[in-house]
Amino acid sequence: MFVIVAYDVNITSEKGKTRLRKVAKECVNYGQRVQNSVFEVNLDYGKFLQMKDRLIKLIDPDKDSLRFYYLGDNWKKRVEHIGVKPGYDSEGVLIF
Amino acid sequence: MFVIVAYDVNITSEKGKTRLRKVAKECVNYGQRVQNSVFEVNLDYGKFLQMKDRLIKLIDPDKDSLRFYYLGDNWKKRVEHIGVKPGYDSEGVLIF
Repeated sequence: MFVIVAYDVNITSEKGKTRLRKVAKECVNYGQRVQNSVFEVNLDYGKFLQMKDRLIKLIDPDKDSLRFYYLGDNWKKRVEHIGVKPGYDSEGVLIF
Repeated sequence: MFVIVAYDVNITSEKGKTRLRKVAKECVNYGQRVQNSVFEVNLDYGKFLQMKDRLIKLIDPDKDSLRFYYLGDNWKKRVEHIGVKPGYDSEGVLIF
C-alpha cells in the first residue's frame, strides 16, 4: 500500500528534538523522503502497521502529530512534483 | 478537487526565507494548514490551477519543490490524523 506520512513534532524542548530525530529515522527506515517532514512509503499492510505503531509510540500526542494519506492503487496518477530533486518512488522510478 | 500541497523551500538565504513566507501565505489563502509545510485544499479546478500557477511562480525551481497529491472524491477515507490538533477539513468538519 502506498501512503504519505507527514509529521509535525514540537521542537521547543530538547525532548522534542529527540522525538523529531527518532521519528525521522524511523520514516527513513521504511520510506522515501520527499520533503523535509513528508515521506512516501510503499509497504505491505503488516509492515505499514508496524511502522505506524512505532511512530505512534515515538510522538507525544499532546504536542506532535502524524498524518497519513492513503493513496490507493492509482497512486502514480495522484502524485505531481515540481521543482528541485523529484523524489524517487519506492520502486526506484523517477516521478515527474 | 481535494489536493495535498507539500512544499520545501530552501531557506539558507534571505531570498529563500522571503520565498517561504510568500509560499506559506499563498497556501493559507487557499487551504487548511495541517502540518508546518503541508496544506490541504478543496477547490474547484479553476481555483486550483490559479493557486498552482501562483506557487510555481513563487518558488525557485532549482532550490525549492512543490508536491501535489490528488486524493480524488474519496479523500475523507484516505486521511488519518493522529496526535495534537487534528486539522479541520475544508468543509469545517473535524477529521479524526
